[in-house]
Amino acid sequence: MHATVLHGAGDVRFEDVAEPKILKPTDAIIKLSATCICGSDLWPYRGLQPMNGPQHMGHEYCGVVVEVGSEVTTVKPGQFVVGSFCLSDNTCPHCQHGFQSSCEQREFMSGAQAPYARIPLADGTLVATAEMPSEDLIPSLLAVSDVLGTGWYAADAARVQPGSTVVVVGDGAVGLMGVLAAKQMGAGRIIAMSRHKSRQDLALEYGATDIISERGDAGVARIKELTKNVGADAVLECVGTQESMQQAIHVARPGSMIGYVGVPHGVEFDGQQLFFSQTGMLGGPAPVRRFLPHLMDLVLTRKINPGKVFDLELPLADVAEGYRAMDERRAIKTLLRV
Amino acid sequence: MHATVLHGAGDVRFEDVAEPKILKPTDAIIKLSATCICGSDLWPYRGLQPMNGPQHMGHEYCGVVVEVGSEVTTVKPGQFVVGSFCLSDNTCPHCQHGFQSSCEQREFMSGAQAPYARIPLADGTLVATAEMPSEDLIPSLLAVSDVLGTGWYAADAARVQPGSTVVVVGDGAVGLMGVLAAKQMGAGRIIAMSRHKSRQDLALEYGATDIISERGDAGVARIKELTKNVGADAVLECVGTQESMQQAIHVARPGSMIGYVGVPHGVEFDGQQLFFSQTGMLGGPAPVRRFLPHLMDLVLTRKINPGKVFDLELPLADVAEGYRAMDERRAIKTLLRV
Repeated sequence: MHATVLHGAGDVRFEDVAEPKILKPTDAIIKLSATCICGSDLWPYRGLQPMNGPQHMGHEYCGVVVEVGSEVTTVKPGQFVVGSFCLSDNTCPHCQHGFQSSCEQREFMSGAQAPYARIPLADGTLVATAEMPSEDLIPSLLAVSDVLGTGWYAADAARVQPGSTVVVVGDGAVGLMGVLAAKQMGAGRIIAMSRHKSRQDLALEYGATDIISERGDAGVARIKELTKNVGADAVLECVGTQESMQQAIHVARPGSMIGYVGVPHGVEFDGQQLFFSQTGMLGGPAPVRRFLPHLMDLVLTRKINPGKVFDLELPLADVAEGYRAMDERRAIKTLLRV
Repeated sequence: MHATVLHGAGDVRFEDVAEPKILKPTDAIIKLSATCICGSDLWPYRGLQPMNGPQHMGHEYCGVVVEVGSEVTTVKPGQFVVGSFCLSDNTCPHCQHGFQSSCEQREFMSGAQAPYARIPLADGTLVATAEMPSEDLIPSLLAVSDVLGTGWYAADAARVQPGSTVVVVGDGAVGLMGVLAAKQMGAGRIIAMSRHKSRQDLALEYGATDIISERGDAGVARIKELTKNVGADAVLECVGTQESMQQAIHVARPGSMIGYVGVPHGVEFDGQQLFFSQTGMLGGPAPVRRFLPHLMDLVLTRKINPGKVFDLELPLADVAEGYRAMDERRAIKTLLRV
């Protein structure tokens, strides 16, 4: 089959690779219904993350099971499934505490920008639908796999409550999903920091009540103004740079939580600053598996439409153009039709 | 009157100072029933914190109101009161969210190692008892003012739940109060890290189920062993050094919270470490005012005995010896009789 391999910075190829096979009795093989490109794929694409040779790309997926290993019991061939980008057994103590992204057997998914993919730890990772979903729901079900699950975790970690004033730092796909999540959790006010018209529009559609286009000190000042100098009850940090993290810390009211889901790159926290600002922090790779059943249900009953975050759709063979479009910010997020 | 003034590193004097007066209509003057020396007083005493001239010491207090300013309505002369080391109006948004230690009008108490003290923001800071408490309860009521309130906040910020496995890093007075707090909150297992016999004994009396005398990597390994390699559900960090904070991070299970109450000195957190360990953090000066009514009630009904943490009692005139005893670790905490 042909699949996506990153050979080096800027060098994405759609090339012949071996078809995936069952390697362990806990594996499943799925035929992808669709896949997509993640903001985090851009780190190695931009040469900002070391690589050990060519890399099979893609960790967001949904599709139909075609084969399962001998120990797999919860999914079977013919079923439509969604899984998390973090593979987990869903039985270890960390999984039972709802932190499947720190599973004792955790692996990170790879090789999903392809027609077929191997899913290790299938029983703990995949959730099947009762029936084959309608074709138009595929983008939203795909979004659950990572981008929605990650935005949801940001809101969960930030402890968004009914009525909360929420600030979302970052208007990428994850930030927009954070807006959607905060809205679903009953936030009273959702302030999205965004300077791009198309992203502002989508943020408003997903439930943002205020848009702040200023950044840095000016952005902080605007939020202080909007919140009568109190700050936010919950902050979703969806970028991962020192600047975005400082912005989050400066707009969080004392005692609030920052849910941070952008992988920190070069971020350091000063202990005394966090102490005297009384800023709470919880981040990490999202335990999407915890949220999968609920989020899939919200999609299947058409209560949410996270799939709108895909503003570019390409055939899988054009994956290189998908990377370019996201790298050049011509697209928020690219969906790849298999 | 004679009171405690720190003139420089190691130079504590009990000397003549002006009696406190009402300076603002929101002030109260109290006659102290007892006062004490805080671990944090040792930072300037050891020359590890810059000073701007001589400093009136002491921020832990309880006593009888002798005078109030014209705007004070909730306490009156003759009443016994306990207050927080953080002075707060208890009405601003931060106070209403339960973070009185970040009150918009916050001041830190000073000058309480004295026979009389001025309490600014008396209405928001002081809580009166219904009647004059029994003399033997004075040490425990004094402890509520800071050391118990701070240990309690550590457990609250770490979200100790019934049944939780809790690790307490630090066997100073605050750490011991953290043990007491975790016990009151229903923790199932309380692992105290301590290498001093007298502190270990008190930790056990306050509810510790396990004592770990190892530190650093060996301490972490012992806790991993005790928790079947899972780590703790909640960690109370009661020291404030880089080493103690790393210890806390390494024993916290993914998704748990570290409540940190030791003022961080030279502590930095690495963003990526906290991200991939999924360690939650909330710290700061304790909002003792939030807990005052409940903790005073627990003391007055003799359900807890935090006053046992004072293992040295001296007349106020001997305050310099009290500092020396704590500096040399001959005492956990010194109570000063006025």
